[in-house]
Amino acid sequence: MMASWARRFCARRAGVLVSRTLEKSVGLVSSTGRGLHGPRGSEALARWGVCAEKLGDPREGPLFARASAAGALLLGATTLALATEGHPKPRVVHAEAVAPAPGRDLPVFSRGEVEGHDTLEKGIWVICGDKVYDITEFVQNHPGGASKIMLAAGKSVEPFWQIYQQHLGNPAVQEILGDLQIGWLDPKDVAGMELDLDRNDPYAREPKTHPALSVHYAKPVNAEIPPSLLMDSWITPNDLWYVRHHHPVPVEHIEGRDKLSLELGVSLGGSHTTQVLSLQDLKEKFEKKKVVATMQCGGNRRGGLNGVDDTKGTSWDVGAISNAEWAGVSLLELLRHMGVEGPEDAEKKGIKHVQFESHDGMTASIPIEKALNPYGDTIIAYEMNGVDIPKKNGYPLRAIVPGVVGVRNVKWLKSITLSSEEAEGPWQRGMNYKVFSPSVKDLNSVDIASVPTIQEQPVQSVIVSPQDGETLEVVPEEELEIKGYSWSGGGRGVIRVDVSIDSGKSWHTATLKEGSEQNPMRAWAWTFWEVSIPVPVSQGKVATKVDICCKATDYAHNCQPETPDSIWNLRGLNNNSWHHVNVNLDDVS
Amino acid sequence: MMASWARRFCARRAGVLVSRTLEKSVGLVSSTGRGLHGPRGSEALARWGVCAEKLGDPREGPLFARASAAGALLLGATTLALATEGHPKPRVVHAEAVAPAPGRDLPVFSRGEVEGHDTLEKGIWVICGDKVYDITEFVQNHPGGASKIMLAAGKSVEPFWQIYQQHLGNPAVQEILGDLQIGWLDPKDVAGMELDLDRNDPYAREPKTHPALSVHYAKPVNAEIPPSLLMDSWITPNDLWYVRHHHPVPVEHIEGRDKLSLELGVSLGGSHTTQVLSLQDLKEKFEKKKVVATMQCGGNRRGGLNGVDDTKGTSWDVGAISNAEWAGVSLLELLRHMGVEGPEDAEKKGIKHVQFESHDGMTASIPIEKALNPYGDTIIAYEMNGVDIPKKNGYPLRAIVPGVVGVRNVKWLKSITLSSEEAEGPWQRGMNYKVFSPSVKDLNSVDIASVPTIQEQPVQSVIVSPQDGETLEVVPEEELEIKGYSWSGGGRGVIRVDVSIDSGKSWHTATLKEGSEQNPMRAWAWTFWEVSIPVPVSQGKVATKVDICCKATDYAHNCQPETPDSIWNLRGLNNNSWHHVNVNLDDVS
Repeated sequence: MMASWARRFCARRAGVLVSRTLEKSVGLVSSTGRGLHGPRGSEALARWGVCAEKLGDPREGPLFARASAAGALLLGATTLALATEGHPKPRVVHAEAVAPAPGRDLPVFSRGEVEGHDTLEKGIWVICGDKVYDITEFVQNHPGGASKIMLAAGKSVEPFWQIYQQHLGNPAVQEILGDLQIGWLDPKDVAGMELDLDRNDPYAREPKTHPALSVHYAKPVNAEIPPSLLMDSWITPNDLWYVRHHHPVPVEHIEGRDKLSLELGVSLGGSHTTQVLSLQDLKEKFEKKKVVATMQCGGNRRGGLNGVDDTKGTSWDVGAISNAEWAGVSLLELLRHMGVEGPEDAEKKGIKHVQFESHDGMTASIPIEKALNPYGDTIIAYEMNGVDIPKKNGYPLRAIVPGVVGVRNVKWLKSITLSSEEAEGPWQRGMNYKVFSPSVKDLNSVDIASVPTIQEQPVQSVIVSPQDGETLEVVPEEELEIKGYSWSGGGRGVIRVDVSIDSGKSWHTATLKEGSEQNPMRAWAWTFWEVSIPVPVSQGKVATKVDICCKATDYAHNCQPETPDSIWNLRGLNNNSWHHVNVNLDDVS
Repeated sequence: MMASWARRFCARRAGVLVSRTLEKSVGLVSSTGRGLHGPRGSEALARWGVCAEKLGDPREGPLFARASAAGALLLGATTLALATEGHPKPRVVHAEAVAPAPGRDLPVFSRGEVEGHDTLEKGIWVICGDKVYDITEFVQNHPGGASKIMLAAGKSVEPFWQIYQQHLGNPAVQEILGDLQIGWLDPKDVAGMELDLDRNDPYAREPKTHPALSVHYAKPVNAEIPPSLLMDSWITPNDLWYVRHHHPVPVEHIEGRDKLSLELGVSLGGSHTTQVLSLQDLKEKFEKKKVVATMQCGGNRRGGLNGVDDTKGTSWDVGAISNAEWAGVSLLELLRHMGVEGPEDAEKKGIKHVQFESHDGMTASIPIEKALNPYGDTIIAYEMNGVDIPKKNGYPLRAIVPGVVGVRNVKWLKSITLSSEEAEGPWQRGMNYKVFSPSVKDLNSVDIASVPTIQEQPVQSVIVSPQDGETLEVVPEEELEIKGYSWSGGGRGVIRVDVSIDSGKSWHTATLKEGSEQNPMRAWAWTFWEVSIPVPVSQGKVATKVDICCKATDYAHNCQPETPDSIWNLRGLNNNSWHHVNVNLDDVS
């Protein structure tokens, strides 16, 4: 199955390239005002070339018979353009739009016949466009899990792909299905299904994504802040927050005042008790608690791991991180309200985890130690930067778990459940947020359950300016102005950032700026830094190229690994290796 | 002042070499039963050679006119031998035992005349042996601080050096003093002072150090567990605990039942209130709380940094770490007893730090967030592994701050003071436990106060078997059995240890053993690990040399830096770079 990983990865790469093209088309330039002479586009193309090679000769392989690299790019561009224009018109994208199948002499089935094949015993058939597939053998290998794909047994996969649009235009999907086609759908049924689909686009009412964001996927939205905007403000404006959705925004569940409530449950030893608090109750019956917290996606900087080996997931650059002041109810207080008197009481009752469930079906949990730590500052927020949390960021309620990976900060919070167990679901117990050893190249021999999912993240720092590939106009004896962000999980304040322009042979200690005044035991927000380093001159001439890198040290004296090689992992999570940018120097003296 | 750092360092290197010689003389061999063919002695000598070079030509420099490398080694051996024999006989070691001064035509002063020079205005004179020195200009440059050296103004330094024996046989000390000699002490006074000294050796009643320990210094004791004993038991027997004293054991303060008490103070806004609890009170009026915690010296593995550049401090190998089950009173409960109701109350009162003071004058503090975290598990211990804490380990009371560097776990605890400020003293506010950037090669331009002292330590792992330099008898197609320990600060459990025999190009994930069942949010104790890796064979032949290295990942996904270069620091603290051992393979098939 080597090929499937590699192919999925390549399709994503193509998506990133397009998003960067879009970024340029909306007029983003470096905040320094200098022109960007970025090699990103060409780099991405070069990478794509590498991928194409791995996939074999495009003229020969089965993949490229149906989906050329250019074709994949085209579809990506279309999808992304829709997203950046805001509310996209409901739109049906059939798989064959990418890969027109060669004519085959196969039988025709009615919708009813397909519906009769929805168990392993009878065989599992699915419809996509005008084709019928027997996926019985594939079900257990479905990357999203057998239970997910079984929802489509006997039906069309397309309503599901409208939610998980990573399937669309994905050559790997096409390749897998290609071999499984067993017939054609009766043309009378094809038209009816398209109508259904058109009426039911789950992304039809999706909140607008700010056009400045770099969009990796539009459905569900995966979008990051471009470097040029990352540090404009220590508090990230709501519109510019990175977005990482797993599903459509559950608009229907978060509209209408009567629905705005939170279910509080205790699920222990087979019994389950619940109570409900309205949004109004939360605002009026509890003290309002504020916390400034930076949130980072587990995949931030995943792109930097792909130089080592392919990873699975969105190829984020450095902008899957944002900072806000959140306000809401202390989770500790809510737990007291639920009858948990403190750590000893929780232990006596067997409560080990606090589970969150979202209106979009997303589930995650955090350890009770985080929830009941009076210095843990976990809140159930209803405000983000002084206003109601925007719909795309989790309205009306969001779990804010400072110092912990983004995915545990569950949006559109529907319920909180105290349990002896972690939450169910792929985001907690599955592979999605689990970091394996660099030696793990596939999951065949991995006991996923034995690997803890990410909670706190490791120390991080990133150079935000200059940007990779930028050309700087310099004069000898002047200084390079370098700035960036730093952060660490668990509230561990960053105590030092070192920057090097000679690949780590010597270091310049940066000045810590906004965020540096935080309590180092509760430094939930990022710390900005900047440093000036003399323009490097060798034999009387200004160097033409400089590799700048940075590393941070946190309050527990953890530091960042030198290279991504030793922390590479299949899912591409928690890349905190030294961050490098390569810039060109243009001596204008 | 470059020379002074380098020289002090070299003197210590010599001491380590001697301690290892002693280690062999007491018959320590690898626990595997294989013979040790260690290159350590020759390595250390080679390093010494490097140092000697840095110090200039021994035949020319002022240092080597008085103290040759061989001479320094000899003195080290004498001092250390005394320690390993247990209660040392009070003994006077004059500086000139190392470095007989050339005759000089200088005036003779009486003890009274010297006593008259004890202020900056009158000049500061001190006596050492039969010589009188004017140290007025040096006082501000004293590495231990001006206040410490001023205690000896107008007096002999030797009673102080009996406490801080790192001065003895230290060529750097000799060199500095050499230029400051202004005269000779009246021979009548010399004899009297020697008698005083002989009667007052502060180490006369020092508890015995177990002969199995590798002793770096005997006075104060700095001794570590040799690798061959490190992992014999997950709980380190009390006798084998590493010892890092800053002063003599304060025997006179911890004997006699009437003296066994703890002072509890609150020092806020200029007012200071205290109460006293007897040891009996602590045992009877509070619940007994147990915690298994591993303690690690800030300097553990310092020796591994010295390959990058010289550091200041004892050149510990990998054995400045031990594990015990402690029992005592919860610090949180003690704080409640002192009227602190919780985090909010502490904040209102302005309490930010919990200061500890020892009967030996040692001071340190921890943040209130650690003390009041109900999951922080800080205790004031009176038992170590089921018995009264031994005198050398802190009898009768010791602060046990799990997950925090050894030095904050204050022994012979005399008082606890709640304050808005950190503890005074070199171990908290001075340079002693502060980590500077690798670019800081001296302290001239460093604002020491702005650098936080160490509390939690970073993730660590060490290969304990085989040992560096060992020769293993192997057979092709067999496996190398490798084992070690791992640990991280802040209770962050170790979730994975990877081991490589090809310098990190590929990794083998170790099996986590004792300690792996700990709660990953409160994993205060170390985790043992082991892994089997096939004997490397190249072109049909067993490799003759193998470089084995390991790295651990903790629950916050922090990992260890690849090399010591980027974390090198002047004080040689927190070395957690990948641990390497080089072994020889002997194919006996």
